[in-house]
Amino acid sequence: MTGSEKGSLYGLGVCEAVARLRDGSLSSRDLTAACLERIKAFDPEIEAWVFLDPEHAMAQAEACDRWRQKGHPVGPLHGLPIAVKDIIETRDMPTEYGCSLYKGNRSGQDATVVAKLRAAGAVILGKTVTTEFAVYRPSKTKNPHDPGRTPGGSSSGSAAAVASFMAPAALGTQTNGSVIRPAAYCGVYGFKPSFGSISRAGVLGLSSFLDQVGLMARSVEDIAAVGDVLCGYDAQDPGTAPPSAGPDLLARAREEAPVPPKFAFVKTAQWAEAEPVTHEAFEQMAAFLGDRITAFELPREFDEGVEALRRVMWADLAKNLAKDYDRGREQLDPQLCHMIEEGAKITAVDYNRARDLRGVLQAHLDEIFDAFDGLLTPATAGEAPLGLESTGSPAFCSTWTFIGAPALSLPLLRGEAGLPIGVQLVGQRGDDGRLLRSANWLAKRFEETLDEDAA
Amino acid sequence: MTGSEKGSLYGLGVCEAVARLRDGSLSSRDLTAACLERIKAFDPEIEAWVFLDPEHAMAQAEACDRWRQKGHPVGPLHGLPIAVKDIIETRDMPTEYGCSLYKGNRSGQDATVVAKLRAAGAVILGKTVTTEFAVYRPSKTKNPHDPGRTPGGSSSGSAAAVASFMAPAALGTQTNGSVIRPAAYCGVYGFKPSFGSISRAGVLGLSSFLDQVGLMARSVEDIAAVGDVLCGYDAQDPGTAPPSAGPDLLARAREEAPVPPKFAFVKTAQWAEAEPVTHEAFEQMAAFLGDRITAFELPREFDEGVEALRRVMWADLAKNLAKDYDRGREQLDPQLCHMIEEGAKITAVDYNRARDLRGVLQAHLDEIFDAFDGLLTPATAGEAPLGLESTGSPAFCSTWTFIGAPALSLPLLRGEAGLPIGVQLVGQRGDDGRLLRSANWLAKRFEETLDEDAA
Repeated sequence: MTGSEKGSLYGLGVCEAVARLRDGSLSSRDLTAACLERIKAFDPEIEAWVFLDPEHAMAQAEACDRWRQKGHPVGPLHGLPIAVKDIIETRDMPTEYGCSLYKGNRSGQDATVVAKLRAAGAVILGKTVTTEFAVYRPSKTKNPHDPGRTPGGSSSGSAAAVASFMAPAALGTQTNGSVIRPAAYCGVYGFKPSFGSISRAGVLGLSSFLDQVGLMARSVEDIAAVGDVLCGYDAQDPGTAPPSAGPDLLARAREEAPVPPKFAFVKTAQWAEAEPVTHEAFEQMAAFLGDRITAFELPREFDEGVEALRRVMWADLAKNLAKDYDRGREQLDPQLCHMIEEGAKITAVDYNRARDLRGVLQAHLDEIFDAFDGLLTPATAGEAPLGLESTGSPAFCSTWTFIGAPALSLPLLRGEAGLPIGVQLVGQRGDDGRLLRSANWLAKRFEETLDEDAA
Repeated sequence: MTGSEKGSLYGLGVCEAVARLRDGSLSSRDLTAACLERIKAFDPEIEAWVFLDPEHAMAQAEACDRWRQKGHPVGPLHGLPIAVKDIIETRDMPTEYGCSLYKGNRSGQDATVVAKLRAAGAVILGKTVTTEFAVYRPSKTKNPHDPGRTPGGSSSGSAAAVASFMAPAALGTQTNGSVIRPAAYCGVYGFKPSFGSISRAGVLGLSSFLDQVGLMARSVEDIAAVGDVLCGYDAQDPGTAPPSAGPDLLARAREEAPVPPKFAFVKTAQWAEAEPVTHEAFEQMAAFLGDRITAFELPREFDEGVEALRRVMWADLAKNLAKDYDRGREQLDPQLCHMIEEGAKITAVDYNRARDLRGVLQAHLDEIFDAFDGLLTPATAGEAPLGLESTGSPAFCSTWTFIGAPALSLPLLRGEAGLPIGVQLVGQRGDDGRLLRSANWLAKRFEETLDEDAA
């Protein structure tokens, strides 16, 4: 990534692209072709995609252009190519869950989120690589900043594709840290909205208590524009919040805050695992924010978040992957098998005690958000680790996923090796708009400073 | 019960009483005094009450009368005395949960349902007997129709109080069959609305998946009038359905159906446990309904409902009563201890498999309710059993409680001993109004026929 993407079609962000697609100064055909060219050039090394049919993508793009040329009304993402993680069903493409047991699997149906993207006019570009069943076993994708390093998981391909300008946005999912972590390692914006914001119908079910759909893009406003299309009640997913007005994320992200946001810097019990490079980067961030940030110590109960998530996730994996384990355990990751086997031993009492912690932590957070607009905390322990045999630790994400709080990773910091370090900004459950507004303030203020420094 | 209650104040039903309280032809003082007189006369034998402070009840009644006399606007139950099961918190009375460990316990707070009753103008008459922790161990209450028989449980006192005209209505709760069963044994109407209709905040929590608040009264319309006050979203109970228009139960109960309702007669896997007297009573009911009723065989999965409820309930009891078990197991019912000990061994996988059955059965029911307005099925195996050492079997209620479907017990049938036999009418989850309308049609048609036979 050399900066040459600026001015190029594949370098366009969501908001700019959809504006140009709408006013006719750009065709979906040209934009999609530019993304496909980019994929052709870089994917042999990055391997972000598990299914790609360029002709099918171009056919969708051309249909979009014809539709628009006829003067029909167009949706908010009309003509925009988007990548979809391969645990999300698509009626016209396979869905293989990163698992050899599902080679060539086709459900013939669109997940609700895919149907919503199509209804908004998006071009479904192809399917991006996931770890096995969106858990730990890595697949082939490399980190675009250094192919010797992991892109993170489980939404590995989605993060790598957006980072390497193969697609302006991508869908991911997070049961533990699978959107925030790869977004941080690959240096893109990653967003996991409040639990219940986005339907999971047609998405691999690992844990109905934890599974959350998220997305990656290259700016806060790009995240918000796609998020607006994805959010909303779905009768097919009882976990989604009931019919209500849309969250209006883009409008909220662009809103001027009445006063500059106040951030709480929370180190969490995981701070000891954070690498020196992260400590330094966050000191830099704290200095930058000055009196807009306050170090804040979370109540003790937050230390139990990681273990609570583990317990719920393992027990739910044991139930939801039982059939796959029974028919093909020898083909599955031994670490996944261990999780399933241990998860099967967890008692309902321990499982429900863990689940009960959500309400306790939620109540604490509600109080904290009376005083702060967002919690700032690392997204990962450090830069993307060397090697491709692991996708890194999700521990910095677990507690927020467990609570169901909205979280965003902002690629604002850099480590020693020049690799991205994500700033995780956590918001109040149900107020994703305020989170994006605060994030946009932070991102823009930070960029301005970098520009000033460079000038 | 001799019929002399007709024309007496204590014999007034909810709708008639609130109409007279409203137009001033009856004072709350007189009505409450009549109920207290009735209690004084009959409770030494029936023992429906665990807490009763006549002076405090009269003080509430007099306050209601003064309020009305001053010309203030009054609520829908203004001046009406109501009984409250003793697992529901009251700020001005003890809440002992039928358990010696909680002798004299006072939370100092009103449960949401009690607060709603007070806001509607009701007089909280006192606390009615529950089995220990609303599970199996019976307390002192006898069946008003035959003091040698159980009133059923766990809402024993509420059913007995309404049946013996000590109160026109009473709150109960149902985790398995604790509203429907005692209502059936005592010959009153018992209603357990759809799961999520009534807040459980301030009610003993046995199983958040199963616990449901219900009520007893002496007619369908009386049930509906009180139900209208109780239903509604409560942020303190995440199980309640989101803000929405009220169910308008009384208006729906009084509505003329566009066509006479059609009933499905479902025998369920429990039919073999039903006594001959129940078989006969339901044959009589089927003959009466003629072409308005069709025998209907439920899909196989319904046979698993009782076991699914048991598994969820026992595992939840093990968690929610752990502290009580730890500090005083020797004072608890050995059967309850057994449930807690076995419940602690249930794995999360088995627990969640059981919970998953709710959606499966719900989907079947949704189809069945395209063709029928209600499912008719026994409320219990037969008349109230002889003896006070057991409260009878909840098995005929378990599946409907598990699904969260609304259910009503109608005291329409009689057994050989002349004791009431309840007809359980089950409705579609979320359409409690249609259930009450169909029930009212059935009850009125049945009474007309009895009157014609008598004439």
